[in-house]
Amino acid sequence: MDWDWLLGSPLKIACIVVGAILVRWLAHRAIQRAVAAMEERPSRPQAGRAGRVLWQAAGLDSQRRHQRAATMGSILRSITTIVVFTIAALTVLAELGVDMRPLLASAGVVGVAIGFGAQSLVKDFLSGIFMIAEDQYGVGDVIDTGEAIGTVEEVSLRITRLRDANGVVWYIRNGEIIRIGNRSQGWSTALVDIPVAYDQPVEKVLRVLRDVVATLDHESPWKERLLETPEVAGVESVTGGVMTVRVIAKCAPNENFSVSRELRERSKVALDLAGIRGPGFSAYGPDSSAP
Amino acid sequence: MDWDWLLGSPLKIACIVVGAILVRWLAHRAIQRAVAAMEERPSRPQAGRAGRVLWQAAGLDSQRRHQRAATMGSILRSITTIVVFTIAALTVLAELGVDMRPLLASAGVVGVAIGFGAQSLVKDFLSGIFMIAEDQYGVGDVIDTGEAIGTVEEVSLRITRLRDANGVVWYIRNGEIIRIGNRSQGWSTALVDIPVAYDQPVEKVLRVLRDVVATLDHESPWKERLLETPEVAGVESVTGGVMTVRVIAKCAPNENFSVSRELRERSKVALDLAGIRGPGFSAYGPDSSAP
Amino acid sequence: MDWDWLLGSPLKIACIVVGAILVRWLAHRAIQRAVAAMEERPSRPQAGRAGRVLWQAAGLDSQRRHQRAATMGSILRSITTIVVFTIAALTVLAELGVDMRPLLASAGVVGVAIGFGAQSLVKDFLSGIFMIAEDQYGVGDVIDTGEAIGTVEEVSLRITRLRDANGVVWYIRNGEIIRIGNRSQGWSTALVDIPVAYDQPVEKVLRVLRDVVATLDHESPWKERLLETPEVAGVESVTGGVMTVRVIAKCAPNENFSVSRELRERSKVALDLAGIRGPGFSAYGPDSSAP
Amino acid sequence: MDWDWLLGSPLKIACIVVGAILVRWLAHRAIQRAVAAMEERPSRPQAGRAGRVLWQAAGLDSQRRHQRAATMGSILRSITTIVVFTIAALTVLAELGVDMRPLLASAGVVGVAIGFGAQSLVKDFLSGIFMIAEDQYGVGDVIDTGEAIGTVEEVSLRITRLRDANGVVWYIRNGEIIRIGNRSQGWSTALVDIPVAYDQPVEKVLRVLRDVVATLDHESPWKERLLETPEVAGVESVTGGVMTVRVIAKCAPNENFSVSRELRERSKVALDLAGIRGPGFSAYGPDSSAP
Amino acid sequence: MDWDWLLGSPLKIACIVVGAILVRWLAHRAIQRAVAAMEERPSRPQAGRAGRVLWQAAGLDSQRRHQRAATMGSILRSITTIVVFTIAALTVLAELGVDMRPLLASAGVVGVAIGFGAQSLVKDFLSGIFMIAEDQYGVGDVIDTGEAIGTVEEVSLRITRLRDANGVVWYIRNGEIIRIGNRSQGWSTALVDIPVAYDQPVEKVLRVLRDVVATLDHESPWKERLLETPEVAGVESVTGGVMTVRVIAKCAPNENFSVSRELRERSKVALDLAGIRGPGFSAYGPDSSAP
Amino acid sequence: MDWDWLLGSPLKIACIVVGAILVRWLAHRAIQRAVAAMEERPSRPQAGRAGRVLWQAAGLDSQRRHQRAATMGSILRSITTIVVFTIAALTVLAELGVDMRPLLASAGVVGVAIGFGAQSLVKDFLSGIFMIAEDQYGVGDVIDTGEAIGTVEEVSLRITRLRDANGVVWYIRNGEIIRIGNRSQGWSTALVDIPVAYDQPVEKVLRVLRDVVATLDHESPWKERLLETPEVAGVESVTGGVMTVRVIAKCAPNENFSVSRELRERSKVALDLAGIRGPGFSAYGPDSSAP
Amino acid sequence: MDWDWLLGSPLKIACIVVGAILVRWLAHRAIQRAVAAMEERPSRPQAGRAGRVLWQAAGLDSQRRHQRAATMGSILRSITTIVVFTIAALTVLAELGVDMRPLLASAGVVGVAIGFGAQSLVKDFLSGIFMIAEDQYGVGDVIDTGEAIGTVEEVSLRITRLRDANGVVWYIRNGEIIRIGNRSQGWSTALVDIPVAYDQPVEKVLRVLRDVVATLDHESPWKERLLETPEVAGVESVTGGVMTVRVIAKCAPNENFSVSRELRERSKVALDLAGIRGPGFSAYGPDSSAP
Repeated sequence: MDWDWLLGSPLKIACIVVGAILVRWLAHRAIQRAVAAMEERPSRPQAGRAGRVLWQAAGLDSQRRHQRAATMGSILRSITTIVVFTIAALTVLAELGVDMRPLLASAGVVGVAIGFGAQSLVKDFLSGIFMIAEDQYGVGDVIDTGEAIGTVEEVSLRITRLRDANGVVWYIRNGEIIRIGNRSQGWSTALVDIPVAYDQPVEKVLRVLRDVVATLDHESPWKERLLETPEVAGVESVTGGVMTVRVIAKCAPNENFSVSRELRERSKVALDLAGIRGPGFSAYGPDSSAP
Repeated sequence: MDWDWLLGSPLKIACIVVGAILVRWLAHRAIQRAVAAMEERPSRPQAGRAGRVLWQAAGLDSQRRHQRAATMGSILRSITTIVVFTIAALTVLAELGVDMRPLLASAGVVGVAIGFGAQSLVKDFLSGIFMIAEDQYGVGDVIDTGEAIGTVEEVSLRITRLRDANGVVWYIRNGEIIRIGNRSQGWSTALVDIPVAYDQPVEKVLRVLRDVVATLDHESPWKERLLETPEVAGVESVTGGVMTVRVIAKCAPNENFSVSRELRERSKVALDLAGIRGPGFSAYGPDSSAP
Repeated sequence: MDWDWLLGSPLKIACIVVGAILVRWLAHRAIQRAVAAMEERPSRPQAGRAGRVLWQAAGLDSQRRHQRAATMGSILRSITTIVVFTIAALTVLAELGVDMRPLLASAGVVGVAIGFGAQSLVKDFLSGIFMIAEDQYGVGDVIDTGEAIGTVEEVSLRITRLRDANGVVWYIRNGEIIRIGNRSQGWSTALVDIPVAYDQPVEKVLRVLRDVVATLDHESPWKERLLETPEVAGVESVTGGVMTVRVIAKCAPNENFSVSRELRERSKVALDLAGIRGPGFSAYGPDSSAP
Repeated sequence: MDWDWLLGSPLKIACIVVGAILVRWLAHRAIQRAVAAMEERPSRPQAGRAGRVLWQAAGLDSQRRHQRAATMGSILRSITTIVVFTIAALTVLAELGVDMRPLLASAGVVGVAIGFGAQSLVKDFLSGIFMIAEDQYGVGDVIDTGEAIGTVEEVSLRITRLRDANGVVWYIRNGEIIRIGNRSQGWSTALVDIPVAYDQPVEKVLRVLRDVVATLDHESPWKERLLETPEVAGVESVTGGVMTVRVIAKCAPNENFSVSRELRERSKVALDLAGIRGPGFSAYGPDSSAP
Repeated sequence: MDWDWLLGSPLKIACIVVGAILVRWLAHRAIQRAVAAMEERPSRPQAGRAGRVLWQAAGLDSQRRHQRAATMGSILRSITTIVVFTIAALTVLAELGVDMRPLLASAGVVGVAIGFGAQSLVKDFLSGIFMIAEDQYGVGDVIDTGEAIGTVEEVSLRITRLRDANGVVWYIRNGEIIRIGNRSQGWSTALVDIPVAYDQPVEKVLRVLRDVVATLDHESPWKERLLETPEVAGVESVTGGVMTVRVIAKCAPNENFSVSRELRERSKVALDLAGIRGPGFSAYGPDSSAP
Repeated sequence: MDWDWLLGSPLKIACIVVGAILVRWLAHRAIQRAVAAMEERPSRPQAGRAGRVLWQAAGLDSQRRHQRAATMGSILRSITTIVVFTIAALTVLAELGVDMRPLLASAGVVGVAIGFGAQSLVKDFLSGIFMIAEDQYGVGDVIDTGEAIGTVEEVSLRITRLRDANGVVWYIRNGEIIRIGNRSQGWSTALVDIPVAYDQPVEKVLRVLRDVVATLDHESPWKERLLETPEVAGVESVTGGVMTVRVIAKCAPNENFSVSRELRERSKVALDLAGIRGPGFSAYGPDSSAP
Repeated sequence: MDWDWLLGSPLKIACIVVGAILVRWLAHRAIQRAVAAMEERPSRPQAGRAGRVLWQAAGLDSQRRHQRAATMGSILRSITTIVVFTIAALTVLAELGVDMRPLLASAGVVGVAIGFGAQSLVKDFLSGIFMIAEDQYGVGDVIDTGEAIGTVEEVSLRITRLRDANGVVWYIRNGEIIRIGNRSQGWSTALVDIPVAYDQPVEKVLRVLRDVVATLDHESPWKERLLETPEVAGVESVTGGVMTVRVIAKCAPNENFSVSRELRERSKVALDLAGIRGPGFSAYGPDSSAP
C-alpha cells in the first residue's frame, strides 16, 4: 500500500471542496439577480389597446410574474447544486484512489437502458421549464392544447392541469403539447352565418343586419363585451337555394359564444319582421299558418 | 500470486459494506419522513364549492392518500436498496481484484440490445410512478384515457385497469396515456339541443324552455343532481328549415346523461303543449292527426 | 510464456464454476416457490356478484392459473440459467487469459446493428411476458385488441392468435397491442335505439317500451341472459321528424347482440300494436295500407 | 521483434480451429434433430371439426411442414457457421498479434452509421424468420395484411408476395406487417342485410327468410359451401322508413361472397312473391306499374 | 526514435497489400459467377397460363434479366473494393505506427452525428438494392406505390421514377415504399355495378346481362382483352329503392378501365331495350317523355 | 508528487489561454463582417412587379434586415465564445494533471440520458436559427404553419408566436413546423364559384359575370385591392341540376376574403337583374312571390 | 520534458501538410472533371416526342444543367477541403503530443447530445444534395410536394421555396418531402365528366361529345394546347338517375384546367342544342319555363 498520496491529496481535496462551495455560491447569486431582473421586466405582450386593457384589468400581471420568477429561481438553484456537488464528489473520490470505472460503466449501462424509456419524461420537464420561462400561459387562462381545451388550474414542470367546459379535469404532459393556443390574451371573434332564401334581395338583407348590429353595440351588457362594432361582412356563400350572410364581431376573450347566440337570435327576429324568408322554406311553398 | 492485498483490502471492504448499510438506512429514514409528510398534505385540488362538497362526500380522500403514500414509499425503498447494494457489490468485487470488464462489457451489449425493446416498458413504469405521485386518478374515478373511457378498477405501476359502460375490462399501459380526463373531480355538463321549425317565434320558444328548466330545478331527484339552475343559452344555430335552441345544465359528476334525457323529454312535451311545431314537420304540410 | 498462473487459476476457476451452479440452484428454488405462491393466489378480479358467478361458472379459473404459473416458471428458469452460465463462462475465459476484447467488441458492433432491427421483437416478448404475468386474458376470452376482435385461441410470448366472428385467424404481435379490452370478464351492454315519429306522445311510447322490457325479463331464454331488468333510459335525441328512445340492457358476456335484436323486434311489434307510428312515415302522408 | 510467441501460439491456434469445427458440427447436428422433430409435430391448429376437414382436404399439410422445416434448418445452419468461424478467425488473428483495434473501431463506426438505416431490413428478416417458424401462413392461403388482401404466392425471409382479387401482385415487407389475418384456416361468414319497408309485419318477413335459408341449405352446390344452416338473426336496425333483417351464414373459407349474393337474390325473389314491400318504395306512394 | 520496425514492417505491409489484392480478385470472381448464374435463372413468377403468355409477349424478360444482373454485379464489385482496400489501408497505417485513434474517434463522432440524419438515405439504398435483387418491378411496369400509381420510367438505387396517368413525373424514395403493387404481372379485374329499380324482376335482369357479357366475349377488340368470359356475379346489394347487380371481368393488365366502360355502356343499352327501368326513376313516378 | 511539470506547463497554459483569446477575437471579427455583408444584401425575393411594389411599400425591408443580422450575429458570437473557452479550459485542466475521465464519463452518461429527451428542444433551436437565417418570415407577416394561421407577433429561437383571426395567441415550437406558407409575400387569390340552374344559357351567364368583373376593376376601393382584372375562368363543374361558373381574382395579400364577398354579392344582384335563375330553385317550381 | 521528438516530428508534420495539400488538389481536380462531364450529359428524361419538344422549347435545359453542375461542384469542394484539413490538423496535433482525448471525448458528448436534435437538419441537407444531383426539379417547374403544390422559386440545400396558385410562398424542408410530383416534365391530363339524365340515349350522347371534341382539336388556341385529339372514353358511372360520360384530353403541361373548362362549356352547349336533358331535371318533371 502506498501512503504517499496522503501528503498531496488532502490539500487537493480541500481545494476541491472549497472551490465547489465557492462556485455554488457564485452561481446562486447570479441566479438571484437574474430572477430579480426577470421580475422587473413586463412579461406579457401588449396586444393592441383593447386587449391590453382587458388583460391588465384582471390584475394578474405582477402576481404571476412574481410566482414565475420564484419557480424559475428554485429550478435553477436545484440544478446548480446537484451539478456542482456531483462533480466535486467524483473528483474527490478519484483523488482518494477509488476506482470509479466499474461504477461509471454500470451507471452507463443502466443510464442507456433507462434513457430510452425516460426520454418522454425528460422531454416533459424540459418543455415545462421553457413554457414557464416563456410565460406561455398561467393559472386562469383558457388554453387550447390540441388535446383538450379548458381553464388552466395548475402549471407544473411535468404536467398542466386543465378543467374543460364539461367539468372534466385534464392532466396533460407538457412534452405532448406541440402548440398552445391561449384564448385569454387579447380578444375573441364571433362568426355568425345568417342563411336566407336565394331569392331574397341582397341589399335589404344587409340593411336589416346592419341595423341589428348597430343596436346591439349600444345596449348593455353587450356593448361591454364588444371591442368594436360588429361588421356585416357580406355574402359568404351561395349554394342550392340558400344565400348565407356573415357577421363578424370582435369580443372580449371567451365572450364570443354568448355574443354569437344573441346576434343570431336578434337577426332571426329582425329578418322575420322585415319579411325576409329563411332558407328551405319558401322553396316548398309558403306556410299559411305562419304568424 | 500476490498476497499483499490481504492487508489493505479487508479493511476497505469492511468500510464499503458498513457505508452501504449506513447509506441505505439513512435513505430509508428520509423516505419514511417524506411519505409521512405526503400523507398529511391534502392531495386533491378543491374545484369550487359544489365540486369539493361532492368529492369529499365520497369519503375516499384520506384512505386514498394513505394508500398512495404507502405505494410510493415501497417503490422508493426498493430502488434505494437495489442501487446501494449494487454499487457496494461492484466496489467490493473490484477491490477483490475480480476483473469486471468482460462482465460489464457483455452487460453493456445485452443492455443496449434489450434497451431498445424495453423502452416502452420503462416508459410505462415511469409514467405509472408519476401518475400515482401526482394523484391524477384513483380507484373508482371515471376517466377518459383517449383509448377507453370507464371506471378505474386498479392502478398499478405498468397498467391501469378500467371497466367501461359496456362491461368490457380494459388494460391500458400507463406509458400510452398521453392525457387523462378525470370525470369524477368536479362536475359534468349536460348540453341539450332542442330543434324547432324555422318559422316559430323565438321568444315564445325560449319562454317555454325557461319554464321547463325552472320546474326541473325544483323537483326531486333532479334538483339534487343539478349544481345550478340550467341555463337556456339561446339560438345555437339556424340551418335549412330548423332553428336549434341550446340548454346548458351543470350537473353532479356523471349525471349529465340522465339529466339531458329528462330535459329533452320535458322540453318536447312542453313545446307540444305550447303548440310549437318541431323540425321537418310543417315544411311538408301540417299533420292533421297531431294531438 | 508464463506458467505461473497454473497455480492460482485452477482454484479460482473451480470456485467460479461451483459458485455458478450454486447461484443457479438457489435462483431456481426461489422461482419454484414464487410460482407455487402465484398458483395459490386467486388471479382474477371479482367484478360484481353477477359477473363473478358467470365467470367462475366457466370453470377455467384454477386450470388457467396453473398453466400460467407453469409458463412463468419456465421463462424465469431459462433466463436464470442463461445469465448465470454466461457470466461464469466469461469469467473463466478471462481467468484463462483468453483475450475477450476482440470478441466483445465485434459482439458489440453486431449487437448494436441488430439491436435496432430487433427492438420490436424484444418488445413483443417483454409485452407477452407481462401480459401473461398480469393475466390480462386467457384462451377462450373474447378480446378487443384494436386491430382485431375475436376469441383467443393461443397466447404465446411473441404473438396472440385470435379467431374473429368471420372465421379469420389473426396473428397479432404482443408488442403492437397498446390496449386490451376483455369482453369476457363481467357483463355486456345492449343499447337499443327505437325511433318513432316526432309527433307521437312521449309518455305512451315510454309506457309501451317499459311493458316490452318487463315481459322480456320474465321469459326464457332471455331472463337467463339478462343480469338486470333492462332500463328504458328516455329520449336520447330529437332530430328532423324523428324522436329516438333508448333502452339499455345489462346482459351476460357476449349476449348483447342477440338481446338487442330481440328487444328491437319486440319493440317494433308492440309499437305497431299500440298505434305508434314509426319515423319517416307519417311525415310523408299516412299510409292507408298499414295494418 | 519477438519470436517467442511462435512456441505457444501455434498450439493455441490449432486448438481454436479444432474447437470451432467441433462446435459447428455439434450445432449442425442439434439443428438437424430439432428440424426433424419439427417436421413430426402437427404444425397447424385444428379449428373445429368442419374447418379441420376442409383444411386437411387441401392436402398441403405434410408438404408445407417439410418445406418449412427445410427453410428453418438452412437459416439456422448458415447463422451458426458464420458466428462460429467469425469468432474463431478473430481469435486467431488476435493470437497472431494483429492489432484488431483499428479494424474493429472502423467497423464500429460503419456499423453504427449503417445500423440506423438497416434497422427496417433487419426487422424484415427477423419478422420473416418468426412468421415461418410460427407457420402463420403458407403458399396458397388467402391473407389480410392490412395493406393488401390476397393469395400468398411466395414467402421469403424479407418479403411476402401476394396476388389480390384484381390480379395485382403485392410485395410486402415482412416487418411492416403488424397483424396477419389468415382467411384460409377455418371458415368464413356471410352477413346479408335484407331491407324491407318499416310498415311490413316482422313475423312474416322472418318466416319468409327462414324458408329461403332452409331451401338453400338443401340444394347443391350451396349445401357443400355451407358449414351450418344459415341463421336468420333478427331485426338488425330500424331507421327512417326502413327495417333491416340480418341473415348469418357460416361458409367454407372464401365462399362467403358467392353465398351472400345467392342469399340476397333468393331473399329478394321470395319477399316479392310474399308481397313484402321493399324499402323507399311505399313511402313515396304505391307504384301502380309494379308487376 | 525507433528504427527497428523497419526490419519487420515492410514484410508485413507487403503481405497485407498482396493479401488485399488477392481477396479482391477472389471476391470479384465470385460475384462474376453469381451474376452469370442469376442471368440464367428465369427471374419472374409464372402467374397462370394467360398471364405468362401476356407477359412474355412483351419480350422484356431476357433483356431485363441481363440489365438487372449487370446492376447487381456493379454494386457488389464497388462494395467489395471499398471494404477490402479500406481495411488494408488501415492495417498498413497501423503497421507504420501512425496513431489512428484521433482519426477514428473524430470519425466516430462525425459518423454518429451524421448517422442519425443519413439513416433514411441508407434505408433508401438498401431498399433499392433488395428491390432490384428481388426483381419486384422493372422499367415499363405499372406499379402502385401507395403514394403514386404509374408507369416505371427508371429504377435507381435511391429513387424510382414513375409517370402517372396525368403525365406527372413522380420521384419516390425507395425506402418510403412499404408495399409495391405491380399491375403488369398477370391480369386486371373490371368490376361493373349495374343499378336497377328495386321492383324489377331479378331473373330477367340477370338474363339480359348474361347476354351482354356473352356478346362482348365474342367481339373484337374485346375478346382479345378478356382473359375469360366475364361473370355476372349476382345481386351485390339491395338498398333504398335500388338493386345493384355486379359483373366481374378478368382482363389483360391495365385493360380493366376500357373494358368496364364498354360493359357499362352495353348493359345500359340492353336494359333499356329489355324495358328494365333504372334506379331513382320509377320511384318518383313514370316519366311520360321517356323514349 | 512530481513538481517537474511546473517548468513546462505554465508556458503551455499561457500559450493555450493566449491562443483561445486570439481565436475568439478572430472569430468575432469574421462574424462581424459576415453580419455586415448580410445586412447589405437584399434579403427578400422579388415576386413579380406588383408583388414587389406592395411588399416594399410596407417599408419593413431594411429594418427587418438589420434586426435579423443583429440576431444572427449575437447567436454566432455566443456559440464561438462557449466553444473556444470550453476547449481551452479542458486543455488547461488536462495540462494541470486533473484527471478528466470520471468527469467526462459521467457527463457522457448524463448527456446521453438527457440527449434523448432534449432532442426536440435542440431541433426547435436549430430550426429557429435556420428560419431566421433564411428570413422565411418576420413580425407582421401572415403565415400558415399547418397548425395555426395568423399574424406573426414574435420570432424567437425556440418558438414563434402568432395571433390568429379569432384573437387566439398561438405558441408554436419551431421544430414542429415542417412547412411555412407566407401569405404576405406577393399576392392572394380570390376564387368565387357562382352556381346557376342547369338550364340557363351558358353564354349569357358568362357575359353578365364579365360585366360585373369589369365594373369592379374600375371602382374604388376595389381597384386598389386587385392586382389584375379578375378573370371569368369558365364552367367549373356541372352536377345534378346545378352549373357552377368560376371567377378568379388576383388581389393584394390578405384582401382575398373581402374581394370574394364583394364579387359574390355583385354577381348575385347582376344575375337576378339579368333574369338568370339560381340553383335548386326552378327545379321545384317557380316561386310566385319572388320580387 | 522530452526534446527528442523535435528531430522526428517536424519531418513527419511537413509530410502530413504536404500530403494534405496534395490530396486536396487531386480531389478538387477530380471534382472539376466530374462536374464538366455532368454538364455534357443530357440531364433530363425524354418523355415521348410531344413532351420533349415542349420541354426543350422552354430553353431551360443547358442553362439549368450548368447551374446544377456549379452547385454540385461547390458542395463537393467544400466537403473535401473540410475533411482533408481536419484530418491533417488532428494528425499534426497528435504528432505534437497534444492530448486529444479530453477534446474528443467532450466533442463526443456534445456531438451525441446535438446529433439527436440535428438529425432532421442533416436529413434536409442530404435530401437536398441528392435532389439537386438527380435533377428532380428546377426553378420554374410546377411541383407537387404533398404539402404544397406550386412553382419552384428557389432550390437550396435545406429548403425548397414554392409559390402556389394563391400567391402563398411555401418554404418546405427537403427532408420532409417523401415524394415529388413534377408537373412540368411531359404533359397533363384533363378529365371531364359530363352528366346526363339516365333515360337519354347513350349513342346520341357519345356522338354529340365526339363532335365537340373534334371541333376543339381544330380551333386555336386549343389545338396548340392539346397534344392529341381528346378521347370520349365512354360511360364512367351509372348511379341514381344520372349517367356520366368521361372525356379524356392530353394537354401541354399545366393547361389541363383551362382545357377542361372549355370542354365542359362546349359539351353543355352542344348537349342542350341536341336536346339531351341534363341530370336531376326530367326526374322532377319538365320545367315549362325553360327557354
